[in-house]
Amino acid sequence: MTATRSYDISSEPILKFFADRNFAFLSTINKDGSPQVTPTWVDIDEEEGLILINTAVGRLKQTNVSRDPRVSISIIDGRDNPYSMVTIKGKVVEQSKSAANEHIDKLARKYLNANKYPGHSPRLTRVILKIKPDRISYLPPRYTQYLKND
Amino acid sequence: MTATRSYDISSEPILKFFADRNFAFLSTINKDGSPQVTPTWVDIDEEEGLILINTAVGRLKQTNVSRDPRVSISIIDGRDNPYSMVTIKGKVVEQSKSAANEHIDKLARKYLNANKYPGHSPRLTRVILKIKPDRISYLPPRYTQYLKND
Repeated sequence: MTATRSYDISSEPILKFFADRNFAFLSTINKDGSPQVTPTWVDIDEEEGLILINTAVGRLKQTNVSRDPRVSISIIDGRDNPYSMVTIKGKVVEQSKSAANEHIDKLARKYLNANKYPGHSPRLTRVILKIKPDRISYLPPRYTQYLKND
Repeated sequence: MTATRSYDISSEPILKFFADRNFAFLSTINKDGSPQVTPTWVDIDEEEGLILINTAVGRLKQTNVSRDPRVSISIIDGRDNPYSMVTIKGKVVEQSKSAANEHIDKLARKYLNANKYPGHSPRLTRVILKIKPDRISYLPPRYTQYLKND
């Protein structure tokens, strides 16, 4: 998979990945230097050019990026062609607790069609990880003829 | 997401993830210590308890695991419930070029319904990364009632 150039988050082939209900597979670095990967809901701040991931304080990905902000994200086009993908290298540049509860409700509307996130808990402090992309790679649809065979 | 115990690869809830056409999101460590993540086809060697990923010599994931064999893998149940997932921490214990061309054909049958892998090239040396899991975590289906609403 060789990606030839870096895209803007608001460019046409990239936006679709975030508009659809695709999960972002977020990779971070554990304390011992080993990799960690987890699927998450994902949103963007188009104006600021940031990727937004909503998690809770103390979760593994949150403690990992607090130590080492470097992340990698992989998203495939689950609806139309799973061989079309976006890969993002970037850094967590801010962690924001402000409006993080409202933000997870927005994500629940997108992903679950729910009015409110069903997992709210007073024991959780939600936080938005704001990721600034260093590089966004895009691979267009492939294997289309094989997928039609199904 | 708290996983409570480690599963065997051949245990009942885990096998389904590999029998279906789910991608594995494989995370490795780049030379500069940053994380890398990429979707790949995946197979298992049930007898040996290994996860098999077929790539080509020189690809980023192959050079990464040749330097640091530690990997993390995330798979979601794309067919029935994307909130059910398997997470694997492990190490690449062997890289095998033997029968790697036949093995990618087997994966093309599983994922593309194709008799042969359409990407064969004399310029590529294919290799099977054999991953021994240290820990396999499993999260059962969630949010079932919301998914029915769609």
